[in-house]
Amino acid sequence: MMTHTDYMKLALQLAASARGNTNPNPLVGAVIVKDGIIVGTGMHRKAGEPHAEVHAFNMAGEQAKGATLYVTLEPCSHYGKTPPCALRVKESGVSRVFVAMQDPNPSVAGRGIQLLRDAGIEVEVGLLEDEARLLNERFIHNMLTNRPFIRTKYAMTLDGKIATHTGDSKWITADAAREDVHRIRHEVDGILVGIQTVLADNPSLTTRLPENYGKNPTRIIFDTQLRTPLDANVCNDEAPTIFVVGSDVTEAQKAPFEALGKTIITAGTTLEETLETLHTHGITDILVEGGGAIHSSFIREQLVNQYIIYVAPKILGGANALSPVTGADVDFMREAVDVKFSSFEAIGEDLKIIAYPKGDN
Amino acid sequence: MMTHTDYMKLALQLAASARGNTNPNPLVGAVIVKDGIIVGTGMHRKAGEPHAEVHAFNMAGEQAKGATLYVTLEPCSHYGKTPPCALRVKESGVSRVFVAMQDPNPSVAGRGIQLLRDAGIEVEVGLLEDEARLLNERFIHNMLTNRPFIRTKYAMTLDGKIATHTGDSKWITADAAREDVHRIRHEVDGILVGIQTVLADNPSLTTRLPENYGKNPTRIIFDTQLRTPLDANVCNDEAPTIFVVGSDVTEAQKAPFEALGKTIITAGTTLEETLETLHTHGITDILVEGGGAIHSSFIREQLVNQYIIYVAPKILGGANALSPVTGADVDFMREAVDVKFSSFEAIGEDLKIIAYPKGDN
Repeated sequence: MMTHTDYMKLALQLAASARGNTNPNPLVGAVIVKDGIIVGTGMHRKAGEPHAEVHAFNMAGEQAKGATLYVTLEPCSHYGKTPPCALRVKESGVSRVFVAMQDPNPSVAGRGIQLLRDAGIEVEVGLLEDEARLLNERFIHNMLTNRPFIRTKYAMTLDGKIATHTGDSKWITADAAREDVHRIRHEVDGILVGIQTVLADNPSLTTRLPENYGKNPTRIIFDTQLRTPLDANVCNDEAPTIFVVGSDVTEAQKAPFEALGKTIITAGTTLEETLETLHTHGITDILVEGGGAIHSSFIREQLVNQYIIYVAPKILGGANALSPVTGADVDFMREAVDVKFSSFEAIGEDLKIIAYPKGDN
Repeated sequence: MMTHTDYMKLALQLAASARGNTNPNPLVGAVIVKDGIIVGTGMHRKAGEPHAEVHAFNMAGEQAKGATLYVTLEPCSHYGKTPPCALRVKESGVSRVFVAMQDPNPSVAGRGIQLLRDAGIEVEVGLLEDEARLLNERFIHNMLTNRPFIRTKYAMTLDGKIATHTGDSKWITADAAREDVHRIRHEVDGILVGIQTVLADNPSLTTRLPENYGKNPTRIIFDTQLRTPLDANVCNDEAPTIFVVGSDVTEAQKAPFEALGKTIITAGTTLEETLETLHTHGITDILVEGGGAIHSSFIREQLVNQYIIYVAPKILGGANALSPVTGADVDFMREAVDVKFSSFEAIGEDLKIIAYPKGDN
């Protein structure tokens, strides 16, 4: 027999199955149960398409009457690209609704739930809320800050090196971990590197997964003086590119990049301001791939939301080998930025560590 | 009902309970079972004391007749500090013996087993052999190489740093991980650092565990020119100290250290030779605590048997912060020394990684 928790877990799994496809919308799943039988399932597949509840109600049809709905996020109460789901829920005739979490937008949170309660439907909020919040950490952050969710990623050896003194870094991790990174690239809107990385490695920053699966994130290049060569791989037409430049870069400098269809924005006074601008360009999350000085800026300014770190089973050594995070030196160990570990996972022969800023959920 | 595997597992647990106390001897446990009842248990507690089988037979008494013995290591067949256990097993009247692994010493392996078989006892070898080999990895290495088992240990931040540019390293890991290190210090014969660490941190390198539990390892200082100050903490009388010095250090330089009861040995032509000398001084395993150049030497010369690495949930950054392994630079990432991960374990808020050289068991 399945429990309330089991049904909500299934709804969360349905929601997660669309990972990478719903931006800027959240991941949402719904399950409808009547007399112990699942009569409807659905998830939000893609922005602009029907919400999760709609698919589930279409499947359930008349059987929704008197049924229980499990939904991972509070049904919306506003007219957007689609009519409000709370109305559809009300009209469906379900008698009970489990909601994993409220809408994170403080100005609308609770309205969808209130609409249902006013219609005499029994509503329980908070079943598997932690899981639901983790699933939509990106969306929640967007709603609360109007900035992209920042994922810092690097791969290092077991002695904390990312390259030899000559800059050689091929390869630190093995195939499985490298494929894992490409899966993350598929899931994010933006991938960010500094000009040093462009000049040193000439990366294309595209998503390369088996069977040509996956979409490319927008490439975001922090390039104060716009020194990227026009024939660099990040200038090709495989994916959009946004250059974040200093205010003294001239229109004449920008013109050839714009002719290639690339976007150029001027850095804000603060990194936070730049992120707000990127958010207005539709960037809801960013994978920051370095280098060391870029990582240092984001980390020191407390703008990182998630750390994704791969550790390879090898020791490089070398007094002049390169480190994943460089930037300004501090004098004391107590000035380090605290994080907390969330998971350790073997990916092929490598280790993947997920961490969050300390103090966050 | 307990199975053969369960009884051997218990014997391994008994053996492991003496960890840190049996050097230079192996860890050995024994269980005797008669008609489904455990009638005898024992372990080797300490060098010079009775072997595991003796305790188990003393407990079993007459009930050993017709019983089954589970023992984690082949019973010895030679007269050492105690009479050969294989004889005692033979005389006990047991009818069947499970041995987890042969004696690792190639020149004696199998003789104890042969002695039992010749006496008409049924002997099965290899039950939980992998676990038994892991338990006695130090002893096996000693037997095969006449060198101490080398455990490389360092603690670093999540971005691979061990200290700020000023050398400050207090603290990287939290209490639980630091206590874990002291437990390892209790278990090893020797703890090794380079002169740079002595001069920079003036460590005492003793074992500090709750309730004053634990013994101090012998401090081994790699100090080519014998520059350790006579009032350094490693010269105190809390624990023995061995200085490994260059051949041009004079008797006059050595005299004051010898007056303090400290041992001075001359480094061999190779690091391997030095380790052989240390083994003749009764050092069967060594915890190498650094610094970076010392780690590099051991790792590059393939002399490390086990890596114990603590990763703290903090990011230090800094272009000039210190790295756990330094030494000579290599040009290419493919020249890194490969290891393989054995375990990832949360110790308090920190991560503990155990790794072994690639190719080893």
